[in-house]
Amino acid sequence: MRLSKYFLPVSKEAPSDAAIASHQLMLRTGMVRQNGAGIYTWLPLGLNVLKKIEQIVREELNRAGAIEILMPTLQQADLWKESGRYEAYGKEMLRITDRHDREMLYGPTNEELVTDVFRSYVKSYKQLPLNLYHQQWKFRDEIRPRFGVMRGREFLMKDGYSFDLTPEDARRSYNRMFCAYLNAFERMGLTAVPMRADTGPIGGDLSHEFIILADTGESAVFCDKALLEMPAPGADLDFDADLTAEVEKRTQHYAATDEMHDEAAFAELPEERQVSARGIEVGHIFYFGTKYSEPMNALVQGPDGQMVPVEMGSYGIGVSRLVGGIIEACHDENGIVWPEAVAPFHVGLINMRVGDEACDNACNQAYAALTDAGIDTLYDDTEDRAGAKFARMDVIGLPWQIVIGPRGIANGVVEVKNRKTGEKSELSVADALAMVRPS
Amino acid sequence: MRLSKYFLPVSKEAPSDAAIASHQLMLRTGMVRQNGAGIYTWLPLGLNVLKKIEQIVREELNRAGAIEILMPTLQQADLWKESGRYEAYGKEMLRITDRHDREMLYGPTNEELVTDVFRSYVKSYKQLPLNLYHQQWKFRDEIRPRFGVMRGREFLMKDGYSFDLTPEDARRSYNRMFCAYLNAFERMGLTAVPMRADTGPIGGDLSHEFIILADTGESAVFCDKALLEMPAPGADLDFDADLTAEVEKRTQHYAATDEMHDEAAFAELPEERQVSARGIEVGHIFYFGTKYSEPMNALVQGPDGQMVPVEMGSYGIGVSRLVGGIIEACHDENGIVWPEAVAPFHVGLINMRVGDEACDNACNQAYAALTDAGIDTLYDDTEDRAGAKFARMDVIGLPWQIVIGPRGIANGVVEVKNRKTGEKSELSVADALAMVRPS
Repeated sequence: MRLSKYFLPVSKEAPSDAAIASHQLMLRTGMVRQNGAGIYTWLPLGLNVLKKIEQIVREELNRAGAIEILMPTLQQADLWKESGRYEAYGKEMLRITDRHDREMLYGPTNEELVTDVFRSYVKSYKQLPLNLYHQQWKFRDEIRPRFGVMRGREFLMKDGYSFDLTPEDARRSYNRMFCAYLNAFERMGLTAVPMRADTGPIGGDLSHEFIILADTGESAVFCDKALLEMPAPGADLDFDADLTAEVEKRTQHYAATDEMHDEAAFAELPEERQVSARGIEVGHIFYFGTKYSEPMNALVQGPDGQMVPVEMGSYGIGVSRLVGGIIEACHDENGIVWPEAVAPFHVGLINMRVGDEACDNACNQAYAALTDAGIDTLYDDTEDRAGAKFARMDVIGLPWQIVIGPRGIANGVVEVKNRKTGEKSELSVADALAMVRPS
Repeated sequence: MRLSKYFLPVSKEAPSDAAIASHQLMLRTGMVRQNGAGIYTWLPLGLNVLKKIEQIVREELNRAGAIEILMPTLQQADLWKESGRYEAYGKEMLRITDRHDREMLYGPTNEELVTDVFRSYVKSYKQLPLNLYHQQWKFRDEIRPRFGVMRGREFLMKDGYSFDLTPEDARRSYNRMFCAYLNAFERMGLTAVPMRADTGPIGGDLSHEFIILADTGESAVFCDKALLEMPAPGADLDFDADLTAEVEKRTQHYAATDEMHDEAAFAELPEERQVSARGIEVGHIFYFGTKYSEPMNALVQGPDGQMVPVEMGSYGIGVSRLVGGIIEACHDENGIVWPEAVAPFHVGLINMRVGDEACDNACNQAYAALTDAGIDTLYDDTEDRAGAKFARMDVIGLPWQIVIGPRGIANGVVEVKNRKTGEKSELSVADALAMVRPS
C-alpha cells in the first residue's frame, strides 16, 4: 500500500484523556476513532490488525473441530426469559423496543440464542459432539467504559459453545478449547496463562481465564513461573486424542487471579518460581453442564433412548480487546512493536527523497519486489521530511523498515531496521528481501 | 470438510411460510435460521457464501482505490440531528436509549458517521480523493420484513463514501465505483444492469441502481438488451484513468426501474431489444454533493486557500441480500445452482458405501487429493442412503459432484457430475480432478 493513497491519520500528541499505553497509541496511530462512550470506528491500520487476530482465532478453532456460524447482534428478549437471565443481567444489557413494541436486546453473549439454534436441529447423540462459534459484535452497557478498546461497550468477541451427551464428553470438548486457545495466543506472539477462575454470571463449576501479563493489567495475578516457560501444544496436536495430559501439565501448576488466590498455596512454591504480576484477561472458558439446556429444554436422545438435557460449555476470546492487550504487552518508548503474525503490515518502506528519480525508481522496484513476494508493505511515498517518516514508522511498529536514500543508492545498499531490536544493517535489495521474509 | 463433522441441517420439506425460492432454499439447506422477524443466524453453509461475496466486494473495491474501515453498529443520535435526518428518518430507524439516557440508534446507513470521521482528520484537498467503505451489519425496522434475507431487518451492507474537492472530481469517484460494481457482480456470476434511479432519502441528483434480473424480482424494470450482453470493464481496467467512456457506453442505453420509466423513450427501441422484466436491486450509488458536508461543516481547504464543503457520494451493496438474490437468479427444480465464485464448496464428494473398505479408501484418497489441490470439498461420509445423498448434494448446489461407489472402483472410474448442466462423465480420479479444477 502506498501511504499517499492510504488513510493513516497519525498525530504527534498523545490524547489527554487516554490513561493507558494501548489507548494512547491506538489513537495516536489512527487505528481507531472514538464515536461515543466505548464505541469506536476501526480505521484502516486498526482494522488490519483486528482481521489478522480474527483469522488466527478462526484457523485455530477450525483446527480443533469447531464450526463457524454467525448469529445476529440483536436478540429477542423471550429467549432470555426462558433461561431466567433477562431480569438477572442488569443494566449492562442494552434493552431495545422495536416499532411493534417487541422487547429485544443487543446480545452481550449468546448462550440462549445458540441453545435455541441447537434445539431446533439436533435431537440425537449421533449428531454430537458439536461445537459452534462465531465472531460477532457484542454490546455491554458498561457504566464507565474506559481504556479504549480494552473495556469498550461495542466490542468484537469470539464466543463458542460446545454440546455433548455426557459430562465426560463435555470435559473433552473443554480440553480441546483449552489447547486451541493456547495455540491461538501463542501464534499472536503472546504468552497466555490459563488460570482457574470464578464463573460469574455465566454459571457452571469449571472455568479458566487466559491471562497475558502486562504492567497495566486490570487485575493482580499469581502463578508458577513454569507456566510462562511452557510452549503451547502446537499445530501438530491431535485434537481427536485424549488431551487430559496436555491440560493437566498446566493445571497442576499454581495460577490464580486475585479473586481465586490462595496465599498459602502460593507461598509453598519455591520463591524463584513465584510470579506475582498484573494481567489482562483475553479469553475465558466455561463448563456449565445443563444450566441453559435444562430450562430451555434442549434435549438429546442418548443410546438408551432416554432424552436428556445436553451438556454445554462456552468459550470466549476478546478479539477487539486483544488489539489493545497485544499493544500493552508489546510496545516501547517509541511506539508499538507488533508481533509479526498480527502486524498491520510486515514491512515499512521509506523513500528518503521523493521526487528524486533514482530514489523513486529504487523504491518502486523494491516495492514491486516485496509485493511480488507476497510481503505486505506500507510504502511511505509522501513528501514529509525524513524525521517525521522515521517517527511515524516507529510509532506504528511494523516489524521491519527498509530505508532507501540517495547515499545508499550510490553504494548499492538499502538500510534494514528491525523495529524490535533496533538493529540496522546495510544490505543489497536482494539481501534485504531475504532478511525481512516472514519466517 | 467431512459432512459427519459438519453442521448441515438439510430438511426435506419446504417451510410453509417462505414465499420465494431463495427463502425456501436457504431454510431447506440450513443456510440460515430465523431468530425473529427479519433476523437470522447464518449457519455454516450460508456463512461460507456470505464470506465469499464479502471478499469479492472487498477485492474489487480495493482494486478501485477504496479503503476499508469498520464503523460501529450503534451511533449517537447527535450526529443525525446535525444532518437533520434524526426526525426525518421515521420508524425504520431503531432508536435506543442507553443506561445514561443517551439517545442512540442502530445505524441504517452511515453518511453522518463517516462525515464525522472525515472532518476529524481531513482538512486539505491534498488529502483527497478519499473513498472509505466498510462491511457492517445494519438495522432497518421494516414494518413487514419478508422474503428471508432479501428484506430482513438486520442485514450486512457494504457502504462506501467518497470525498472530493470539486463536483468534477466527485464524478470521477462515482465513475470508479460504477465500474467496480460491474466487476464485482460479474465475478459473482451475475449480470447486473445499472439503471438511473430515484435518490430517495439519501438525497442528491445522480444515482444508479444495479439490478439483476429474476422472475421474482421486487420491481418491474425496463432496459435495452444491449446492456445484458455487455461484459463488465474487467480486472485490467485502469482506475486512475478517465472512466467516462466506460460509464457512458452503458448509460447511453435505455434502462430504468418502474419509478423512472419513460414509456415513450422505451418504445423507440427496436422491439427485439426491448427487455421488460422483474429485477432485484443489489447495489445503489449516489452522488449528493454537499448535502451532508454543509450542515455538518466538513470543510476542506482548496488550492486557493478557501475552505469549502467537501463533495460526497455514497455507494451501497446489499451483501447479505445478494445471497438470496443469487439464488433467485441461479436455481432449478432440484435446488440451488451456485456460480463457482460464490459456491460454499467447490466439489461435493459422495461415498456410495461407507464402511466398505475399498470405497472408504478410494474416497479418502480422492478427498486428500482434492484438499491438497486447494479445492474446497464437502465429503459426504455419512451412512445415509444413496438417494438422500444425491438429493442433498443437488439441493445445496455445489458446482461439481464426484461420486465413488463399488462398481466404479471395480472399473477404475468415478462419476463426475456438473450440477448446472447435469452432464455426467465416468473418469479416472486424476481426470476427474482435472475436470473440476476451478478455471
